[in-house]
Amino acid sequence: MSIHDQVIEIAKNARSAANRLATMPSEIKNRALREMADRLINEKELLIAENEKDLAYARQKGMSRALIDRLTLNKTTVGAMAGGLREVAALPDPVGSITSMWRRPNGLLVGRMRIPLGVIGIIYESRPNVTADAAALCLKSGNAVILRGGSEAIHSNLAIAGILREVLASTGIPDTAIQVIPTTDREAVNVMLTLEEYIDLIIPRGGEDLIRAVVNRSKIPVIKHYKGVCHIFVDATADIDMAVTLSMNAKTQRPGVCNAMETLLVHKDIAGSFLPRIVRELREAGVTLKGCEKARAIIGDMEAATEADWYEEYLDLILAIRVVDDLNEAIAHIERYGSLHTESIVTRDYKNSQRFLNEVNSSTVVVNASTRFSDGFELGLGAEIGISTTKLHAFGPMGLEELTTTKFIIYGDGQIRT
Amino acid sequence: MSIHDQVIEIAKNARSAANRLATMPSEIKNRALREMADRLINEKELLIAENEKDLAYARQKGMSRALIDRLTLNKTTVGAMAGGLREVAALPDPVGSITSMWRRPNGLLVGRMRIPLGVIGIIYESRPNVTADAAALCLKSGNAVILRGGSEAIHSNLAIAGILREVLASTGIPDTAIQVIPTTDREAVNVMLTLEEYIDLIIPRGGEDLIRAVVNRSKIPVIKHYKGVCHIFVDATADIDMAVTLSMNAKTQRPGVCNAMETLLVHKDIAGSFLPRIVRELREAGVTLKGCEKARAIIGDMEAATEADWYEEYLDLILAIRVVDDLNEAIAHIERYGSLHTESIVTRDYKNSQRFLNEVNSSTVVVNASTRFSDGFELGLGAEIGISTTKLHAFGPMGLEELTTTKFIIYGDGQIRT
Repeated sequence: MSIHDQVIEIAKNARSAANRLATMPSEIKNRALREMADRLINEKELLIAENEKDLAYARQKGMSRALIDRLTLNKTTVGAMAGGLREVAALPDPVGSITSMWRRPNGLLVGRMRIPLGVIGIIYESRPNVTADAAALCLKSGNAVILRGGSEAIHSNLAIAGILREVLASTGIPDTAIQVIPTTDREAVNVMLTLEEYIDLIIPRGGEDLIRAVVNRSKIPVIKHYKGVCHIFVDATADIDMAVTLSMNAKTQRPGVCNAMETLLVHKDIAGSFLPRIVRELREAGVTLKGCEKARAIIGDMEAATEADWYEEYLDLILAIRVVDDLNEAIAHIERYGSLHTESIVTRDYKNSQRFLNEVNSSTVVVNASTRFSDGFELGLGAEIGISTTKLHAFGPMGLEELTTTKFIIYGDGQIRT
Repeated sequence: MSIHDQVIEIAKNARSAANRLATMPSEIKNRALREMADRLINEKELLIAENEKDLAYARQKGMSRALIDRLTLNKTTVGAMAGGLREVAALPDPVGSITSMWRRPNGLLVGRMRIPLGVIGIIYESRPNVTADAAALCLKSGNAVILRGGSEAIHSNLAIAGILREVLASTGIPDTAIQVIPTTDREAVNVMLTLEEYIDLIIPRGGEDLIRAVVNRSKIPVIKHYKGVCHIFVDATADIDMAVTLSMNAKTQRPGVCNAMETLLVHKDIAGSFLPRIVRELREAGVTLKGCEKARAIIGDMEAATEADWYEEYLDLILAIRVVDDLNEAIAHIERYGSLHTESIVTRDYKNSQRFLNEVNSSTVVVNASTRFSDGFELGLGAEIGISTTKLHAFGPMGLEELTTTKFIIYGDGQIRT
C-alpha cells in the first residue's frame, strides 16, 4: 500500500473509532486507562529494549546530550508515564455534561451538551512520553487520536502504542482509537494534514519550526503557540522582595519552557532600588542580562539589548531588561513584542492590577505571581494537552474540556415555529 | 494604491481599532448602536437612493425576482435594520464577564474572562441588511469587522457602512472598527483571506459555492456550514398528530432556509398509518415527494428517491422520505447522509428520546419539536451571526458569546512555582 493510502486508511479507521468512542461510558474508558498504566509497568523491559534501538540510532547520529535525555525511557520515566495515565483516569469525564440549560418562553428546554471533537492528530518531537499522555487525554475526552512522533522515537512510540492498543482491544474499545503513523516518511505528515474529512484538529507540539511547517501545510484547523515571550512588569509600588522572588522563579526555575520570563519590564521609579538587587541575584544564578539604555545607566556592566532581543524567546538563562515610564508603556511593550502567552504584573496598586488584567490581551494574565503558573495542571485543569496562543476555540493552557465542543439539545412537546 | 495595499491598509486599521475596542465600555458601544439605528431611519432617503443604483444594475443584468427582492431597501427594510441594531444594543455585553473562577490549593484565584476575538471578516452575498446586522454584532462583542458584500450591493453596503462609521467617529470609537471593502474586484477577497496576522476569523454567509471558495483559499480560520440536510425521525411510538404538525412546519413554513427538513425518516411500524396522512397534507401544500421502495409500497404514486436524494439540500418544496426498521437505522442514516446541522425525533418513548439526544452528533438535536428552532434567536442566544457545522470554536447557531474567547486571569499574592 502506498503511504498515501496507508494514512487515509488510518484516518478512516480513526473516524469510525471516534463514532464509537463518542458515547463510550466513562467507566470503560477509565478501566482501560488504569489497565494501560499496569501494562506499561509490566512491559517496561520491552519498552526499554525498543527504546534502546532509538537511542543507538540517536547516538550514531550524534544527537545532543539534552535530546538523548528527552528520548530515554527507563524505570523512572515508564513509572511516570503510568502515573500520568492513572491521573487522567481519575479526572472527571467532560463528555455528556450539560454546561447550561434554559427554558424558552414557548416551553422548549434548551441546553448545551459537551461532546468530543472527533479525531485529533498530534504531531510531536522526540519525547516518547507524549505518546501515552496525548493518547490518554484524547481517549478520556472521547476522541480518537492519530500520533505522529519524531523519527528518532519511532520504535519507542510504536511499542508504547502497541501496549495501549492491546488494552483497548481487551476492553471493547476499537483499537483504532489510538494509532501511531508507522512510517517515518515525511510524506505521511503531508497526507495527514490534508484529510479534513477524517481529522478534526491538529495539535503540533515542539519547536517553532515544526509548528510553522504544520500550519503552512494543514487544511485542518491547528491549535498552537509558536513561542512564549513572557513578561513580568515590576510596577512603581511593587513589594521589592516579592518582585525579586517572582522574577527569579519565572526566569530560573526552568528556563527552557514556554512560560519562563524572557523580558523584565521595570517602572522607572523603582528601577534604582530594584535593579541592583535583582541583577545581583540573577547573575549569581548564572543569568546573562541585556538591558535598555536606562537600565544600563543604573547597571553599568550590562550588555545592550537590541530591538531583536525584545522579540526573543531565549529558552535559556538569558534575560532582557527594560525600564519603562509607566503602566501604559509596559502594556504597549507587551502588545508590540509579546506572543499572547503569559504576562505578570507585580504591584501594590489596586487600579493598576485591574488595568493590567483587563487591558493585556495575552492568554494568561497574572497579578503578583510567577508566569510559570500558566500550565494546565497548575491552573487546575487537571491535565494539559497543549497551550494555544490563537483565540479560536481555545486560548491559553488546554485541558480535557478544550478537547470537546458542545451541541445544542432541545426537549420539546410539540412546538412549531410560527 | 494597489488593491493588495488597500486591503492590507484596511486590515491593519481594523487591528488597531480592535485593540481600542477590546476595553470599550458597554455603555459607549450601546449608545453608538442606538444612534446608528436613529441615523439609518433619518437617512433612509439616501439609503434608498443608493440602493436604487444597485437595483438598476441588477435589473439590467437580468437578476431573478427573488434576488432583487433580497437586494431591495425600502422604508420597511430600513426600519427592520434599525430595529435589529436596537435589539443588539439591549443584549448583555459578553466582554469582560468572568465565566468561572476557582481557588487553587496554593491560594491563587484563577478565572476565565471573556474577551473579543479581534478582527472578523464577513463575506456575504446580496442582502444589504447583513452589513448592519453583522457590524452591530461585532461592535457589541468588541470586535472590529471587515465587510465584503456582493458586488451587486456595493452602493447599498457603502451607504449603510458610511452612516454607521459617522456615528462611530462621533462617539469616540475608531471608525475603522467597521469597514466595507470599497472595491468589487475579486482580488480583494483573495488578499483578505491571506491576512492571518490582522484578521482572526472569517465568516462566510451565502450559498455552498461561496463558502467552499472561501474555505479553499483562506489561511484564516473559517466558521461555516456548507448546507443543512435536516431530518425528522418519526419513531414507532410517535403521537401522529404531533408528527404531522412538526413535519409540516419543518418542511413548509420556510422551505428555503438551512434548518428546514429535507428528509423524513419513518419507523416501519408507524409508516402505514402516518405516511398516508402526512403525504396528503404535504401534497396539499405543494410539496413534491421522493420515496424509498418501502415508502412507495405504501404510497403508490410517489417518485423513487435516488441515492443522491439523501444527500440533497433542496431548499424548496421537495421532500425525500425513507422508511427505516428502527432507531438504529435512523441514526445510521443521519450519520451517513446528514450535514451535522439539525435533527429531530418525534417519539413517546423515553429511552429512544435519550438515545437520540446522546447518539446523534449534529449541532442541534431535538426531541418533539420542529427543526426550524435551530436559530440563534429561537434558542435564546439573543442574536445570530451564523451557524457552524464544524466543531472547532463553535458548533450550531452562534450568538455574541461565540464572537468572544476567554483568557485566564490569576490573582496571586506572591506565589512561585516549586
